[in-house]
Amino acid sequence: MADSSDRKAVVGNKQVIFMDFVSGFPKESSMYVTTGTVKLKLPQGCRGVLLKNLYLSCDTYMRILMKPHNGSSGDAFNPYAPGCPIYGFGVAKVLDSGHPDFRKGDLVWGITTWEEYSVITAPEILFKIQHTDQLCFFFIFLLIIGMAGMTAFIGFYEICSPKKGEYVYVSAALGAIGQLVGQFAKLTGCYVVGSAGSKEKVDLLKNKFGFDEAFNYKEEHDLNAALKRHFPEGIDIYFDNVGGKMLDAVLLNMRVHGRIAACGMISQYNADKPEGVSNLMNIVYKSVRMEGFTAMDHLQQYSKFLGTIIPYIKEGKIAYAEDIAEGLENGPSALLGLFHGRSIGKQIIVVARA
Amino acid sequence: MADSSDRKAVVGNKQVIFMDFVSGFPKESSMYVTTGTVKLKLPQGCRGVLLKNLYLSCDTYMRILMKPHNGSSGDAFNPYAPGCPIYGFGVAKVLDSGHPDFRKGDLVWGITTWEEYSVITAPEILFKIQHTDQLCFFFIFLLIIGMAGMTAFIGFYEICSPKKGEYVYVSAALGAIGQLVGQFAKLTGCYVVGSAGSKEKVDLLKNKFGFDEAFNYKEEHDLNAALKRHFPEGIDIYFDNVGGKMLDAVLLNMRVHGRIAACGMISQYNADKPEGVSNLMNIVYKSVRMEGFTAMDHLQQYSKFLGTIIPYIKEGKIAYAEDIAEGLENGPSALLGLFHGRSIGKQIIVVARA
Repeated sequence: MADSSDRKAVVGNKQVIFMDFVSGFPKESSMYVTTGTVKLKLPQGCRGVLLKNLYLSCDTYMRILMKPHNGSSGDAFNPYAPGCPIYGFGVAKVLDSGHPDFRKGDLVWGITTWEEYSVITAPEILFKIQHTDQLCFFFIFLLIIGMAGMTAFIGFYEICSPKKGEYVYVSAALGAIGQLVGQFAKLTGCYVVGSAGSKEKVDLLKNKFGFDEAFNYKEEHDLNAALKRHFPEGIDIYFDNVGGKMLDAVLLNMRVHGRIAACGMISQYNADKPEGVSNLMNIVYKSVRMEGFTAMDHLQQYSKFLGTIIPYIKEGKIAYAEDIAEGLENGPSALLGLFHGRSIGKQIIVVARA
Repeated sequence: MADSSDRKAVVGNKQVIFMDFVSGFPKESSMYVTTGTVKLKLPQGCRGVLLKNLYLSCDTYMRILMKPHNGSSGDAFNPYAPGCPIYGFGVAKVLDSGHPDFRKGDLVWGITTWEEYSVITAPEILFKIQHTDQLCFFFIFLLIIGMAGMTAFIGFYEICSPKKGEYVYVSAALGAIGQLVGQFAKLTGCYVVGSAGSKEKVDLLKNKFGFDEAFNYKEEHDLNAALKRHFPEGIDIYFDNVGGKMLDAVLLNMRVHGRIAACGMISQYNADKPEGVSNLMNIVYKSVRMEGFTAMDHLQQYSKFLGTIIPYIKEGKIAYAEDIAEGLENGPSALLGLFHGRSIGKQIIVVARA
């Protein structure tokens, strides 16, 4: 009887819809919030899952998805489709499943759409969250155990090949990824300097996250001079979240055999014409490796990552900062805040708490 | 008695002396040829070697050594010292040795100074040439078995991690390194396109070196369009010898997980202000790895390299083109020719033939 009534249950479904491809800074009008309807039961024979979304993650790479493909083949990301909900990482509860790996009531994380309820037809990209201990806070999943954590972990340990005593620089260091990279670097025995865009963020980097030094890039007229001041011996590892002028200044300060993890270039995402980087010859002169990556390409290392990160969290060796927006209707504004440096730490949207 | 007269033998020693640090294109007046003297016997107790130089190699990296250090620590190269002879790779004969590894009459290759006779105080950077078979042509040493060959070998096989069937693009493809990279790529089963600066060079690439396609970059107004025409599926591997605008166009055409060996940036060496490269975001979007390297960092692979290259040469699977200048007095002009696209193939200077 319950089952039969479920099958007919149709409820309102708030959604964040993508308007159209964006040039320059995205605006709130680049998306709109609307309310559709959804049947709280999958159609007969569907092998997908129906999710109730709980927490959604705001990430800078989402800006990239607001541009159309540039025509070259094989882009790593599919852009958003105008008229459809945007998508990103989230934590959700399974309400109905036609897939043998998922059952009603499971908690999952992975790629989901920005709506109250999502039908995911290919749930192989979802990961079950195990309720085994008190670590299972949803925030921690999105913040650390989810994609930001994997990105920081893969980017730092795999791409940067760090060694104890090396000089590490992290830009956008208070972002969800940067704050973790800095802490991984300290745990590895590196000297770590971070940059961010306000005094409040700089203080957090030094006092909460244990960076050896930090500076406000907005107060530096000469980024090269700022880096020389902080790294008189040069930089072994640069974890790049910003690109552009900062990358150009860093290239002048790289040491021989230095490594640059090209994680993101937020300074360029909203530019119609990207800034030119002039100092690439240092890559030749100093045998520097610069490498782009996505955590998705390294999912086979997820259990190694958990085996590293969970003890760190339990022992209190990893701090984190999150910025919470309540309600899907506040999603667009929270997402856009990333590009204006408004969020302090990981930006998360609470769609529902259970 | 012979020994006693040797000790006193002083002969003229033609030298190519570096004038002063260069901005813009180097000119013949950036160097001058003079004749000093040298005693054809090492001082008592010296653990170096005295060389009679036979063949000298002209390489584009030598332009880098004509600039002073930019002040950052740990540059991979020591610049030339004004008033002293320039240096580079060469083949030479040992006239006298105070080092247990070398004997009078040995043939060696490695870093030597641009003079008729050189005293090398740290001969650990010299390699003995074994007279074991008919491969021992000096040209082949400089051209293939020497540093150009090692650079092509390490750059292609180690840095680019090539796989059969991949799409490979080589710029300055008729240079000493480029011509070998293209042939290694064909031997690996890749599809290879090269670019060069004249019709004659393009013809050589296709007809002598077996490139699948080649084009004259000087005839292309839109490098991006030229690359799209030659690589409709995109580029997996770019072996970069030129940097600048070409690199910028290549970045637009890289495939996911592409690799760029940053071997040289000849288009930028003579520029006082390097060109900006605007399309680095593709490194992030497409998880591209771009890596600088020097063969000197991989010398432990030299015997593996010989084990690969010598059979190729014996079986006639590797072609090569050289451009010979006779006499040290023609050295400056031959070296400068590299930066004006004058040489066809590897530029070598014959100082003496025995």
